[in-house]
Amino acid sequence: VLADGRAVRLGGRTVKDVAGYDLKRLFVGSEGTLGVITEATLRLRPLPPPAATVVATFGEVAAAGRAVVAVMQELRPAALELMDRAAVAAVEQVKPMGLDPGIGALLLGQSDAAGDEVARIGEACEQAGAGYVAVTDDPDEGELLMGARRMAIPCVERLGTVLIEDVGVPIPRIPDLILAVEEVARRRATAIPVIGHAGDGNFHPLVTFDAGDPEATARAEQAFGDVMDAALALGGTITGEHGVGSLKARHLLDQLGPDVVELTRRIKQALDPAGTLNPGKWI
Amino acid sequence: VLADGRAVRLGGRTVKDVAGYDLKRLFVGSEGTLGVITEATLRLRPLPPPAATVVATFGEVAAAGRAVVAVMQELRPAALELMDRAAVAAVEQVKPMGLDPGIGALLLGQSDAAGDEVARIGEACEQAGAGYVAVTDDPDEGELLMGARRMAIPCVERLGTVLIEDVGVPIPRIPDLILAVEEVARRRATAIPVIGHAGDGNFHPLVTFDAGDPEATARAEQAFGDVMDAALALGGTITGEHGVGSLKARHLLDQLGPDVVELTRRIKQALDPAGTLNPGKWI
Repeated sequence: VLADGRAVRLGGRTVKDVAGYDLKRLFVGSEGTLGVITEATLRLRPLPPPAATVVATFGEVAAAGRAVVAVMQELRPAALELMDRAAVAAVEQVKPMGLDPGIGALLLGQSDAAGDEVARIGEACEQAGAGYVAVTDDPDEGELLMGARRMAIPCVERLGTVLIEDVGVPIPRIPDLILAVEEVARRRATAIPVIGHAGDGNFHPLVTFDAGDPEATARAEQAFGDVMDAALALGGTITGEHGVGSLKARHLLDQLGPDVVELTRRIKQALDPAGTLNPGKWI
Repeated sequence: VLADGRAVRLGGRTVKDVAGYDLKRLFVGSEGTLGVITEATLRLRPLPPPAATVVATFGEVAAAGRAVVAVMQELRPAALELMDRAAVAAVEQVKPMGLDPGIGALLLGQSDAAGDEVARIGEACEQAGAGYVAVTDDPDEGELLMGARRMAIPCVERLGTVLIEDVGVPIPRIPDLILAVEEVARRRATAIPVIGHAGDGNFHPLVTFDAGDPEATARAEQAFGDVMDAALALGGTITGEHGVGSLKARHLLDQLGPDVVELTRRIKQALDPAGTLNPGKWI
């Protein structure tokens, strides 16, 4: 629904469509600043074939980052997820699964491609210094392993209040981002367990703090900003998938730069001249 | 480069990025009406694993269309390409490969997924009435078969001047589109061999005519418009992948409707108030 109250439909039911401006994608992710989405039609996809799963452990998280870079140079696995030491420890503390809390990082890969993709992921992990690598074709065993990753956020949330980051960097800069987050955690004296969709270069450093402690809260907020600054310094983004919202609006300007901000303002002005929609947000 | 001469960079090197409006996708496909693209950075992807190939022949092209609908309900093959009788005959006439020019249509599928995807495509084809189905794991044999599809446009171009259509319809409407194109060809007394990326519902009816014959040319131009009208009547698009250009501009208005056209104009006006960029195009 546009600012003047008219309802339009954008996009369509075809798989491909290049007729006219891509207005559907302009509105998706505009977070209510261009219109209100009152109806969305989603495409269903068939279930993919059963996936094979590979798990690898590393002594240091930076080595896991290097393994991700190596894997993504050659392959496109269906999933490639990372948990650092603190994320593994949080899962073990809240819901013990027999993971070794002494490891530096865990990588979990899945493949539904033909051929020996999981074996090749495992080899890349070994070459990057993995301590332990295991592969399974059993879907239930694979789901159990991926379950550890899925439990990480609720488990870390038992340890304190969590500001969930969502930064992304170009694949080759993944090890640099991981080191930068470790440095922020030290400097701000704040726990930042890291999980991430590593194959996308998209990470969720979990800035964890005691919300009852004003000093810890201030340090956590500074750490949250520092992680975004680090991602931007590496050519990355402040948000890979979750959006800008209120919390990241100030950093959006840093990412886009003045010319793209001006372009953004012109589109906002053209579609919502009275500033009715989500007023005060973003720009 | 914007209308005022400023150069901006849109998009970035991360795999995922939802910071700000999706301006990159707004400019891609705007065909020079919002800015001039002077530089593009493309992402390289690793080679996919070797594909297995399936070929199926049908007595009638509509049966091939029904097979595509059945396949896409269950699977997402890497390729699913269609050639109708006239396209097969044109290839055999120009560059004989031993295809039977008497068949009504040919479907070519490829899969690089784990499991038995090509076998399942073959079964769906048999259930839809395929006369002959063959599967090969041999990449060279697969490439030879796919080569027939790739040669179709140059072979048809030997037979006359070709207006290449690029319509798309929702997957379930594929058989209806195929029948509609046959009807247009009859009514306009114009040859329209059909090839298509059938798994996307994206077809290239090849409107073929003698450019030295003014009446044949007029009929071909009418047929070209009729095919777009048929796609729109089926909930489809006038262009799946090639763009609007000059030839389809009039039909763009039919597809978008007055409200989306007005939205399009507002964005054009905001970004190019003096109408400097690709003047007179589209809207």
